[in-house]
Amino acid sequence: MSNENIYETGLGKNTANFTPLTPLSFIGRTAAVYPDHLSVVHGNKRYTWSQTYARCRRLASALAHRGIAVGETVAVIGSNTPEMLEAAFGVPMSGAVLNTLNVRLDAKTIAYCLNQGEAKLLITDTEFSETIKEALAQLGRDIPVIDIDDSEAGDDISHERLGEKDYEALLEEGDADFDWNLPADEWQAISLNYTSGTTGNPKGVVYHHRGAYLNATSNIIGWNMAHHPVYLWTLPMFHCNGWCFPWSVAAIAGVNVCLRRVAAGEIFTAIATHGVTHFCGAPIVLNMVVNADDAERKDFSHTVNVMTAAAPPPASTLEKMQRQGFNVTHVYGLTETYGPAVICSWHDEWNDRPIEEQAELKARQGVNYHMLQGLRVMDPETMTPVPDDGETIGEVMFRGNVVMKGYLKNQDATNESLADGWFHSGDLGVSHPDGYMQLKDRSKDIIISGGENISSIEVENVLYKHPAVLTAAVVARPDEKWGETPCAFIELKNPDQPPGEDEIIEFCRDNIAHFKAPKTIIFGILPKTSTGKIQKFKLREKAKQL
Amino acid sequence: MSNENIYETGLGKNTANFTPLTPLSFIGRTAAVYPDHLSVVHGNKRYTWSQTYARCRRLASALAHRGIAVGETVAVIGSNTPEMLEAAFGVPMSGAVLNTLNVRLDAKTIAYCLNQGEAKLLITDTEFSETIKEALAQLGRDIPVIDIDDSEAGDDISHERLGEKDYEALLEEGDADFDWNLPADEWQAISLNYTSGTTGNPKGVVYHHRGAYLNATSNIIGWNMAHHPVYLWTLPMFHCNGWCFPWSVAAIAGVNVCLRRVAAGEIFTAIATHGVTHFCGAPIVLNMVVNADDAERKDFSHTVNVMTAAAPPPASTLEKMQRQGFNVTHVYGLTETYGPAVICSWHDEWNDRPIEEQAELKARQGVNYHMLQGLRVMDPETMTPVPDDGETIGEVMFRGNVVMKGYLKNQDATNESLADGWFHSGDLGVSHPDGYMQLKDRSKDIIISGGENISSIEVENVLYKHPAVLTAAVVARPDEKWGETPCAFIELKNPDQPPGEDEIIEFCRDNIAHFKAPKTIIFGILPKTSTGKIQKFKLREKAKQL
Repeated sequence: MSNENIYETGLGKNTANFTPLTPLSFIGRTAAVYPDHLSVVHGNKRYTWSQTYARCRRLASALAHRGIAVGETVAVIGSNTPEMLEAAFGVPMSGAVLNTLNVRLDAKTIAYCLNQGEAKLLITDTEFSETIKEALAQLGRDIPVIDIDDSEAGDDISHERLGEKDYEALLEEGDADFDWNLPADEWQAISLNYTSGTTGNPKGVVYHHRGAYLNATSNIIGWNMAHHPVYLWTLPMFHCNGWCFPWSVAAIAGVNVCLRRVAAGEIFTAIATHGVTHFCGAPIVLNMVVNADDAERKDFSHTVNVMTAAAPPPASTLEKMQRQGFNVTHVYGLTETYGPAVICSWHDEWNDRPIEEQAELKARQGVNYHMLQGLRVMDPETMTPVPDDGETIGEVMFRGNVVMKGYLKNQDATNESLADGWFHSGDLGVSHPDGYMQLKDRSKDIIISGGENISSIEVENVLYKHPAVLTAAVVARPDEKWGETPCAFIELKNPDQPPGEDEIIEFCRDNIAHFKAPKTIIFGILPKTSTGKIQKFKLREKAKQL
Repeated sequence: MSNENIYETGLGKNTANFTPLTPLSFIGRTAAVYPDHLSVVHGNKRYTWSQTYARCRRLASALAHRGIAVGETVAVIGSNTPEMLEAAFGVPMSGAVLNTLNVRLDAKTIAYCLNQGEAKLLITDTEFSETIKEALAQLGRDIPVIDIDDSEAGDDISHERLGEKDYEALLEEGDADFDWNLPADEWQAISLNYTSGTTGNPKGVVYHHRGAYLNATSNIIGWNMAHHPVYLWTLPMFHCNGWCFPWSVAAIAGVNVCLRRVAAGEIFTAIATHGVTHFCGAPIVLNMVVNADDAERKDFSHTVNVMTAAAPPPASTLEKMQRQGFNVTHVYGLTETYGPAVICSWHDEWNDRPIEEQAELKARQGVNYHMLQGLRVMDPETMTPVPDDGETIGEVMFRGNVVMKGYLKNQDATNESLADGWFHSGDLGVSHPDGYMQLKDRSKDIIISGGENISSIEVENVLYKHPAVLTAAVVARPDEKWGETPCAFIELKNPDQPPGEDEIIEFCRDNIAHFKAPKTIIFGILPKTSTGKIQKFKLREKAKQL
C-alpha cells in the first residue's frame, strides 16, 4: 500500500461533481418546480415564478446583448418593486455585478458611487429622478440610463423619465429563454453595496456568489422558514441586497409582496389581504406597527414573523408585538456580513419568563448564524476573547463565508478590516455567560464621563421604558469638567404634552447608576436614515453646539 | 479607468472571509448555543449536545493521538447507537475518513472493504463479532480493533469482544477539549461508503466535506425541518452516512433517538415516549408501521414526518399512513449522491385530489434537491434530455455538489460514471409534463418480452393494489418464445390463505396491458438487504432455474 493519500488521487473536481455555489440556482429550480405559484404582488400586478424567471432572463439577456461583461457594474436606484427583485437575479445572471444604491443619498454621493463602482448602466426609478438628474450632471461622463416608471405608483411621485427607454422596453431587448451561465467561480462578485458611512466617502462592499448563496440559506434555516412564505418587503432591497432575502424567498418558492411606501396601514393591509407570514425591518417599523391607530389596523389570525436589527426592540414594544400576533426575532449584522449574520437564537424555555426578562434576553444580538463560522468579542490589541462575563467590553469580530470579499478599490481599508483573520466590525460588545453576544456600542458611541465609560445603548434602554418616549438617542456632549456627559434626544409619543426634563432625568437616575443619567434632554424629531437608523453623527454635532 | 476586472483585484480569500464548508461546524455551534439540550436518547442513556460534542472531541483526539493522519481510513461496523453518531463527527474531526460498513455483509466482503479502503482502525459492535472475527482472520494483516459493547443491549446479542479495548476506553485516551481543525480544503474526503453492488466487488464511494455540508442543509430545507426535531433512527447510519442526517439533526439541535432493532412496537413506543417528529426508511419500514397490530400501536396526537426512498409507497400504504398521522415524503438518491438528492416536492393543492391520485403523484421521484444543481433524464448515447412526456425512457443523471468525488482507487469506474459532465445513475426513468421525474427501472430491471419493453415497477405497482399482496417483485424469466417474460415473486399478508395464481394474473390483466401481466407467480418470503431493498438479483437467479 502506498503512503500517498488515496483520497486525493484521481478524485478531482469535474463538471459532474462540482458546480459553483450561487443563489441564482434557486430561481431556476423554483420556476421549474412551482412555475404557477405567485412570486410577486405589487399593487394590482401579479407575477408567477415562471414569469419572474422569464423577466430575469430577459434582463440578463438584454444586458449581455448590450455588451456588459463579467465583472462590470450595473447600478440600480429603486424602491421595493418587482424590478428591484428582478435585478437581484437578472443582473448577476448576465455576469455583471449588481450595485443597488440607497435612494436617500444626495446627488453628490450617488455620483461618487456611480464613478467609484464604474457603473456601465443605471436603472433608476422615476420617484428619484430629481436627485438622479443632478447626480448624472455631476458624473462627468455619459452612461446609459433606463427608467423604472412604475405603473402602480400614483401621481404623488415623480414620473419624470431621464433615460433612453424604460425598463419594460429594456426587457423587450432580451430573450426570455436566455441560456445564462453559472458564474465561472463562486468567488466571483455578485453585488456591490456601499456602506452608509457617517463620515468620509462611502466604501463599496463586495459580495460573492458563494456568500450570497450561504447567507440566503442561513436566513431560511436560522429563521425556521417553511416553504411558501409570504414575505412583505418593508426592508429596502437596496440594503445589503435586502439581507439576501430575494434569494431566500426564491429558494423556498415564496411570495414577494412589494411595498413602495412603508406605513402601518399598508403593513396591516398586506397581512390581512395577502396573508403575510414574514417581514423584516428596523425598530422604526416595529414602532409603526405597535403604535398604529385603529383605522390602520386589520385583524389577522396567523402568526407573523418579524426579523429586526439595528437596535434591540424595547420590552414594551416586544410585549405589544407579541400580544398582537407578531413573533419577533432579533438579528445583527453589517453591510460587510451580507446583512444578518448573528441571531438571538431563542430557547423555548425562555417563553415562561416574565416579559421584561424575555425582552432583556431578546435584546442580546446572540450567536453566529448557521453559516457564519466564527463570532467573537475580542480585545482588538491582543486578539484574545473577552471573558464570558457580560461585562468586559471588546470588539465584535466575524469570520466565515458570509464576510465580504473586501472594499472595492480600497486595499488599505480591506486589509485593515480583515486583519488577523477576522473582520473587525468596529462595534463594541460583551459576551454573556451563555456565550450570547450583546452590543454595547460602536466605539464612537461610548460616552466617557469623568473617566467612566457609559454605554449610550444602556441609557437609551432606560429611556425607552418611560411611557412618554417614542424614540431615544443618547450621545456625548463635550463638558469642561467631565470631559463628556450623556445628552439625550427624545422623540415623544405625544409632542403636545411633553414631560419635564427633570422628570426624565429623575426617571433615569431611578433606573441606572446616577453618573449614567443624561445631563441634557432635548425633545424633537430625530434625524434618521432611509433604513430607520438614527443618525447619531448629526445629534453629536448638535450636542457640540448646545 | 482600467480594463481590468475591478472585482478581482485585491479581493482574494483569506481566513477572515473564507472557511471550508464542513458539517462538522454544525455540532460546535449547537453545543455552544444549546449545550443542555438533549442530543441522544438510547435505551436509558441520555446525552446533551455539550456531552456529545465532548465525546466526539475525545474520539477525534484519541485517533489523532494514535497517529491516524489526514486521509487515512477509520472503519466502523455498528448499529444505530450513540457511538455511530459520534463517529460521524469524531472521525472526520481528526482529519480521518469515516468508513461505515453494512452490518449484513459477509466476512469476505467486509475483509475486502477493509483492505480496499486501507482501514487503519476498526471500531466494531459486538453484535456482529461472529462475522467480524472471520473477516479479521481473512484480512491478511493486523489492524487495531475497538469494541462497541453496548450496555443498553440485552443478552440476545453477542457481547464477544474482539479488540484491544472498548470504545469507552478509547474515548478515555482523548481530550474533551481537543482543538480540532476544520479540513484544510472542503474537497477533502469526509467518508467512504461502499455500494452494495449486486455483482462484483463493492465500489468505495468517496464523499467530501463540501457535499456533506450541502446535503445536510438540503435535507433541512427540502424537508421543511424546523429547529429541535426529534429524529428516530430507523434508517441505518451506515447507509450513506444516514443520508447525512447526523449532520442535519446537529445543525438544528435535534434529538437523535437511537434504535438497535427496527420493529413496529419500538417505533410506536419512541413516537409516544419521545415525541418523535421525523424518521426515514425504506418501504419495509412503512409496511411495518401500517401493518402493526394493536399490541404494538401507541396513540400520538402530533404529525410524524416520514421520508421514504428505494420504492414508491403504494397508494394503500400511503392512505393508511396519512390516516394514522404520518406525513410521507418520497425521495430518491444513490450512495453516489450522499443519499437523497431528489424529492417529490409536494404541491399543497394536490391534497384535494383523491388519495389514489395523490399516491400516483407521490410515487414519482420528483425534482432536484435544493442543493443538487442538475437532474435530467437523458438518452445516454446522445446526452440529450428525453421529452417531458412521461413515456420516453432515459437514464437518470445528476450534476452538482452532492455528487461523490468518485470511486476510491477505481479510475475507470469513476471516469465512466462521471463522463460528459453528469453522473450516470444507471437508473431508468421518464420526465412528466410538469418536469417531475419518475423511475421506471434500473437498466437490468427492464423486461424485454417479444420485443416490447416492460417496466417491472409498473407491474409491481399493480400487484401492490391486490389486497392479498404484502410485497411484490417482478423480474425477467428467460423464455424460448418471447425472449423474456415477467415473473412475479409475492410475499403475502396472510401466507395461510394464498390466492390462486390465476387470480393474480387475471388481476394484472385487468389493470395493465395484457403482455405486461406476469406469466409466472411464485409465493414466498422475498430476499432483502439490510436496508429493506429486495435483492432482485437473487430472484433473477431463481427465475432462470424455474
